[in-house]
Amino acid sequence: MLLLHRAMVLGLRPTCRLRLTSSRLCIRACSTDDSFQPQHPSLTSSGNNSSTRGWGLMGTLLGLGAVLAYRDRCCRAAQESPHIYTREDVSSHRSPETGIWVTFGHEVFDVTEFVDLHPGGPSKLMLAAGGPLEPFWALYAVHSQSHVHEILAQYKIGELRPEDKAPSMLETFDPYADDPQRHPALQVNSQCPFNAEPPPELLTENYITPTPIFFTRNHLPVPNLDPDTYRLHVAGPPGGQSLSLSLDDLYQFPKHEITVTLQCAGNRRSEMNQVKTVKGLEWRTGAISTARWAGARLCDVLAQAGHHLCETEAHVCFEGLDSDSTGTAYGASIPLTRAMDPEAEVLLAYEMNGEPLPRDHGFPVRVVVPGVVGARHVKWLGKISVESEESHSHWQRRDYKGFSPSVDWDTVDFDSAPSIQELPVQSAITEPRDGEMVEPGEVTVKGYAWSGGGRAVIRVDVSLDGGLTWQAAELDGEEQRPRKAWAWRLWQLQAPVPPGQKELDIVCKAVDDSYNVQPDTVAPIWNLRGVLSNAWHRVHVRVTS
Amino acid sequence: MLLLHRAMVLGLRPTCRLRLTSSRLCIRACSTDDSFQPQHPSLTSSGNNSSTRGWGLMGTLLGLGAVLAYRDRCCRAAQESPHIYTREDVSSHRSPETGIWVTFGHEVFDVTEFVDLHPGGPSKLMLAAGGPLEPFWALYAVHSQSHVHEILAQYKIGELRPEDKAPSMLETFDPYADDPQRHPALQVNSQCPFNAEPPPELLTENYITPTPIFFTRNHLPVPNLDPDTYRLHVAGPPGGQSLSLSLDDLYQFPKHEITVTLQCAGNRRSEMNQVKTVKGLEWRTGAISTARWAGARLCDVLAQAGHHLCETEAHVCFEGLDSDSTGTAYGASIPLTRAMDPEAEVLLAYEMNGEPLPRDHGFPVRVVVPGVVGARHVKWLGKISVESEESHSHWQRRDYKGFSPSVDWDTVDFDSAPSIQELPVQSAITEPRDGEMVEPGEVTVKGYAWSGGGRAVIRVDVSLDGGLTWQAAELDGEEQRPRKAWAWRLWQLQAPVPPGQKELDIVCKAVDDSYNVQPDTVAPIWNLRGVLSNAWHRVHVRVTS
Repeated sequence: MLLLHRAMVLGLRPTCRLRLTSSRLCIRACSTDDSFQPQHPSLTSSGNNSSTRGWGLMGTLLGLGAVLAYRDRCCRAAQESPHIYTREDVSSHRSPETGIWVTFGHEVFDVTEFVDLHPGGPSKLMLAAGGPLEPFWALYAVHSQSHVHEILAQYKIGELRPEDKAPSMLETFDPYADDPQRHPALQVNSQCPFNAEPPPELLTENYITPTPIFFTRNHLPVPNLDPDTYRLHVAGPPGGQSLSLSLDDLYQFPKHEITVTLQCAGNRRSEMNQVKTVKGLEWRTGAISTARWAGARLCDVLAQAGHHLCETEAHVCFEGLDSDSTGTAYGASIPLTRAMDPEAEVLLAYEMNGEPLPRDHGFPVRVVVPGVVGARHVKWLGKISVESEESHSHWQRRDYKGFSPSVDWDTVDFDSAPSIQELPVQSAITEPRDGEMVEPGEVTVKGYAWSGGGRAVIRVDVSLDGGLTWQAAELDGEEQRPRKAWAWRLWQLQAPVPPGQKELDIVCKAVDDSYNVQPDTVAPIWNLRGVLSNAWHRVHVRVTS
Repeated sequence: MLLLHRAMVLGLRPTCRLRLTSSRLCIRACSTDDSFQPQHPSLTSSGNNSSTRGWGLMGTLLGLGAVLAYRDRCCRAAQESPHIYTREDVSSHRSPETGIWVTFGHEVFDVTEFVDLHPGGPSKLMLAAGGPLEPFWALYAVHSQSHVHEILAQYKIGELRPEDKAPSMLETFDPYADDPQRHPALQVNSQCPFNAEPPPELLTENYITPTPIFFTRNHLPVPNLDPDTYRLHVAGPPGGQSLSLSLDDLYQFPKHEITVTLQCAGNRRSEMNQVKTVKGLEWRTGAISTARWAGARLCDVLAQAGHHLCETEAHVCFEGLDSDSTGTAYGASIPLTRAMDPEAEVLLAYEMNGEPLPRDHGFPVRVVVPGVVGARHVKWLGKISVESEESHSHWQRRDYKGFSPSVDWDTVDFDSAPSIQELPVQSAITEPRDGEMVEPGEVTVKGYAWSGGGRAVIRVDVSLDGGLTWQAAELDGEEQRPRKAWAWRLWQLQAPVPPGQKELDIVCKAVDDSYNVQPDTVAPIWNLRGVLSNAWHRVHVRVTS
């Protein structure tokens, strides 16, 4: 209770502040990767010396499906007479030659045959070879799902002796303990890493999204960086000199300020999930926001480092200073042509809405790539390099790509699809909300519309009858520059409610200046990761009588 | 018969060669403007001295709805005792002060009140004030529709005296008489001006469309220009010098060669027409073709003329050397930013597939604007200027724009929509054809896919069940350069026909590298001009048993 109280004083969800002791095992049910479905923020369980009774107790305490499945499996396993191993036995098995063993709780698993099947890649699993899985599973919440436990159970070879059961490195490990405070209005899709969106009714209240409710998409714990010692490493061209830029150095470049809308590739994933289950955070319509960003232009910094456009294809790779427990940093890349084009206005931003960046948005420096998916706007920027290939980061190569609806996790070939850069045309209704009651007479419909690649939104059509008839909405917001329409348009329509109408199927669809439109329905654009969800947005309301 | 024979020897449709005599009246049923629906190539009618009997005879001879409607109206009019006027009477009425009179055949009309209602604008109608309508209607085929005649009939005030009936200027007037020969494979949507598309089964036989079957979109008669005296006028900046470039002068600029797909904004209009009538040529899937184009880069020519990018918005206006009988030339414009961007590769092309341009495609020089709607690729280029506003041409301001499905000809505000520049993502099936019988076992589906703005096609999904399940097609054709994917991808899919299946609803949809997709259905993108028709393409076939 004291712990809970302290956590609330700090403005954090209590579950994020829980620490582990040697007699406790914390399965962090939080996502570090947009690949996974959201979970309840955290599950805490006890493991004690009496294995059968302990797991039974755990199941009773938690009562959640995933954990129950795990308990059932453990109970079955415990009915056999297990081999007993020491931690030393386990740690001597960490190569294909010796076999690859890992532990989870008090159990020992030989995962030699599973390594190549690991969905996150063999290398990630090999980091845990010869030791406990918990430190890694704490970062990658997918593992807290029941089917993962079921897979693991197949590889069980025995148990640890009682005195070896709790891995000591877990005692003080909570990578998210230092995350910043957040605004209570945010709708949290995942606490750790923190992923949250503003509620629709706040989202379109302002053309510039207030910083505290700007949607937050973190892949990893938020680093706490000292602006005085911060350095941005800019690798030079072959044979050239690299730069190590302090914040003051960055301030010396001409300051460039632009209004840019950022959108997560997973915005509106929840609608795709309704068609067929996808892997990813359950974003509604709020994984999009708009800010004034100021900083140095990337092209200026690259030029100072001696880079210039080349005939062959090249990519500018960014690396964040956020990293997982293995030291793997967030990374992404954009084509060099975009990076070097002054008209593309790619920024190394140190200001958001006239203030230094908040920690959740990349303090002290993040990339802002106007018109491009949020995933390339690398936060807590630590390193820039120019490479002949795209970033080798998981998020560039094994995520944030679109596939045909026919592709599933058994058939997906991530190399077959280009990484998402520019996003397609998008719009959504923020008012009224789905299921709301509206007054007869006149209804006000509000929302946002945006398109990638600097393409301006030129029209938003709204229907009150599910798409049979349409009315053009009024576009608000700043006039947009040709080819550089980086920011959204807010829109609204005031329309008479047809007399006697009991229900309205409100639909919106936007058109951009290349006359691209949104597709009618979700199913034909469904993809296993639930990205690029830009079908007509639909809201069903009832009319009060 | 002799006339018919001569016309066939020349490879022209006979109807295009018919000349008018003083006892004959030719209603040219050909379209000069994509605004209007296609007609049978030509209607020829006789008008003689006995008005009632003459019109009756005409109806009997032709038996077409439009003409019957016209005859009925005339019959009614003739039942009253008409005022008789001379040509001098008519020609003295050509201002709002005197009233505005025109003639059509032997009838006289006071159109003073109609001038402001004229769909083509008051100025176009004023060109005919005080004289016959025929020379103008010969160029604008919309007038040969029955409802136009019905509108005109409302303004009838009398008839010409017999000796004044045939306007002498019609006797030798056939602006299309000098049009070039065309390939017989072309499917003709309008003879005069010539508008034709290759049949689908030929369209995707070659990545580079053979020049003779490249789709042809003419708005006016084809000029016959002498390459030795040809000059391209490039207006200089304010205070600067203008250029007058011969072909040899153009050859002195670095020669730039690129593969570019051109598509008419009206491609696939026929599908939109099936939803609800639109105004425009009934293009099927063939108003798109691909060629190798070579010429000088527009940015180099503009630079030589002293132009450079400016902060304020500006447009490069093009004027063709094709013109109507009033001297109005075809015109269009593109933003200066695109024109000056070397990466946008805008060409003043003098070669098509390694040969001088054919006359139908703009000999000796046309504009090629990669990634942009065909309407801006001005042919027979005569003049270039940089202006603060878009071209004032009808085709820039009053045509080639997209509107909401709710907008009709009573409510349309052409100023409210931007001119079409980049086109949206597109694809179509060219094999099998709609209604075809296919063998059981395996079906081969072929087609094309393309997107505007240099966006590469990254995937084509094909469905055999109307869109319930999808398979990715194999993409053929050249590898595309990032941001400069100016040319289409051809694609094909070989798929098993589900055993026992009697029919297949084959559907295709493409995705481009900004992950824009085609909309599911036509109705929600329907627009009164029938442009931008890029819904999923559907072909229904039966399986032989």
